Amino acid sequence: MKSNEFLFEKDIPWKNAGELMKRQILGYDEKIMLVKMQFEKGAIGALHTHPHSQCTYVISGKYEFTIGNETKVVQKGDSLYIAPDAVHGIKCLEPGELIDVFSPVREDFLG
Amino acid sequence: MKSNEFLFEKDIPWKNAGELMKRQILGYDEKIMLVKMQFEKGAIGALHTHPHSQCTYVISGKYEFTIGNETKVVQKGDSLYIAPDAVHGIKCLEPGELIDVFSPVREDFLG
Repeated sequence: MKSNEFLFEKDIPWKNAGELMKRQILGYDEKIMLVKMQFEKGAIGALHTHPHSQCTYVISGKYEFTIGNETKVVQKGDSLYIAPDAVHGIKCLEPGELIDVFSPVREDFLG
Repeated sequence: MKSNEFLFEKDIPWKNAGELMKRQILGYDEKIMLVKMQFEKGAIGALHTHPHSQCTYVISGKYEFTIGNETKVVQKGDSLYIAPDAVHGIKCLEPGELIDVFSPVREDFLG
């Protein structure tokens, strides 16, 4: 299981990822997956958990991000680490894009 | 082994990563590590290998990227997947930033 080596933005389809949210699945193998998320203002990723380790990098926009009991506002250049099974959620305050990375691969995103 | 959950750009030190290159170590645990790289024009990451799976996302700039026998030019929004032990290298054509993600963690970057 693995993606192509070179992934050009113009070739990668956007998939609906919930109301006001979409995603591009970029590089992956069994151990890792990189996903680009695009949010419109007001988009909400409800609190949830998954067994994957996650890192998130903010390319653009402004977001209220919750991990466990902490909620903070993050923007361009900021990033996050979400431990396996940690409760987390997001609210988009200003539209933009994030990179989400998971280990292992999110097989549910490939279906 | 893990990073903080919230990582604000202004708080994270830049480390020298070679001539004309520097990096910020962002989120990580044993399984995953997210690193931001900044390149000046002409920076060269010589061909090398490592046993980690890697994904790279181009935030800005333009780069000649080699994986195995293929060399292609990538820019904003493009990305790459590099399998464990695959030979790869980079030349910066226009200055900018990349996100590099590894699984497992690059312990050599934490020294």
